[in-house]
Amino acid sequence: MENIVKKILDEREINALLVEYCRALDCMDLDAIANLFSDDCVVKFGTDEQLNSRGSKALAKSLERMWRWKRTSHHLSNVIVHFTGSDKAFSKSYVHAWHERFDETTATIYGQYHDELKQENGRWVITKRTMYMNGNDSGFKVKIFPFERKSPPKNWLAPKIDEV
Amino acid sequence: MENIVKKILDEREINALLVEYCRALDCMDLDAIANLFSDDCVVKFGTDEQLNSRGSKALAKSLERMWRWKRTSHHLSNVIVHFTGSDKAFSKSYVHAWHERFDETTATIYGQYHDELKQENGRWVITKRTMYMNGNDSGFKVKIFPFERKSPPKNWLAPKIDEV
Amino acid sequence: MENIVKKILDEREINALLVEYCRALDCMDLDAIANLFSDDCVVKFGTDEQLNSRGSKALAKSLERMWRWKRTSHHLSNVIVHFTGSDKAFSKSYVHAWHERFDETTATIYGQYHDELKQENGRWVITKRTMYMNGNDSGFKVKIFPFERKSPPKNWLAPKIDEV
Repeated sequence: MENIVKKILDEREINALLVEYCRALDCMDLDAIANLFSDDCVVKFGTDEQLNSRGSKALAKSLERMWRWKRTSHHLSNVIVHFTGSDKAFSKSYVHAWHERFDETTATIYGQYHDELKQENGRWVITKRTMYMNGNDSGFKVKIFPFERKSPPKNWLAPKIDEV
Repeated sequence: MENIVKKILDEREINALLVEYCRALDCMDLDAIANLFSDDCVVKFGTDEQLNSRGSKALAKSLERMWRWKRTSHHLSNVIVHFTGSDKAFSKSYVHAWHERFDETTATIYGQYHDELKQENGRWVITKRTMYMNGNDSGFKVKIFPFERKSPPKNWLAPKIDEV
Repeated sequence: MENIVKKILDEREINALLVEYCRALDCMDLDAIANLFSDDCVVKFGTDEQLNSRGSKALAKSLERMWRWKRTSHHLSNVIVHFTGSDKAFSKSYVHAWHERFDETTATIYGQYHDELKQENGRWVITKRTMYMNGNDSGFKVKIFPFERKSPPKNWLAPKIDEV
């Protein structure tokens, strides 16, 4: 029973951590972001070298690129957490991230965070984050890893009524 | 006390199920979707016959229509769960669903899932799903059931400042 | 242990309350909205006098302005709750709010609710709500309080690859 309650509390804490990342990013509190990751974390947004970093300080430094946006808003949802040990977990979440440039053009991504986490010194931190992209509007140009989608079977026919 | 913890865990499981539907739909893992519904489930997206199905296999078959989209992203939020028995529940959730065609035009719906669920063989499944539409952009043409909105009282006057 | 479970249940109830606000607003059930706030609540959306109200009845009256929209959809996410006493809490949440006018033009805001809550007569109510705006599209004209963003350090240089 106590184990179950601990698990519920751990999940609550992990959810709060994922949410705090969004809040801190939207107000560009990069110190707060570094604090959510382990010292040796690995973060990969895409294949481009500039989209990868190792270590929480390097991550915070790398995210300075977000200052090229005038405003951003990161809406987190679809959070699931799985525990792989008493102090280890992974989580998946969706993010709807809106970005506005100083010329007021915008860029939107519909993405996912896939995270590995550990509990150290009584608190959870992200040890590995990989971002995937379900979709994006034409304003969003960053080459985030695409989320793979299954192909239709060979015999698939588009429905007769196009818009159903 | 144990009953309360069971309820919390059940709710957690139902939330994970609703999230898994979105993930599976966005990667078109239709077998995984069928697995989330009861064999005799009833699913209704709108009045059109093609938007309704009975049974988890028929649902998966019906959702093959989603292959007419190149990419989709289903962001789930506003989840509430009510238990109507120890193994019965209903839930309501919001979904922000983005769809992209192969010609790169897009379609967005702001919708709701209203679900009935039961627990069978130790796991929760959806027995009935009805979808409602709060709103949609001009690219989204599917006739989902509209979410009803109350009308203003007869004496209502629009505020003087239009944009407040 | 019982205290921890009570806290989990309280958080669950507060989350449901925040979600109910969105649902009630999207179907314009203003009586249901008034019921979520304390009699003496203070609600501030921005500096304009028309965007502020005191008391749950005045709030419901004030929100009649939402009838100038044909349809709305309020997607709540990023919810965190902190308890400041056994019957007091504050919460922060994000909202992606879509609005459609009768001429079918739209307005979208990416915002935050910062709430203070208390438990009275066994249920939680909002005693103070302030709304902040992370961002908005060009159709959204209401002057919601801006969410403050830190400025870049003086030595900041935009990354060479513009779109990273």
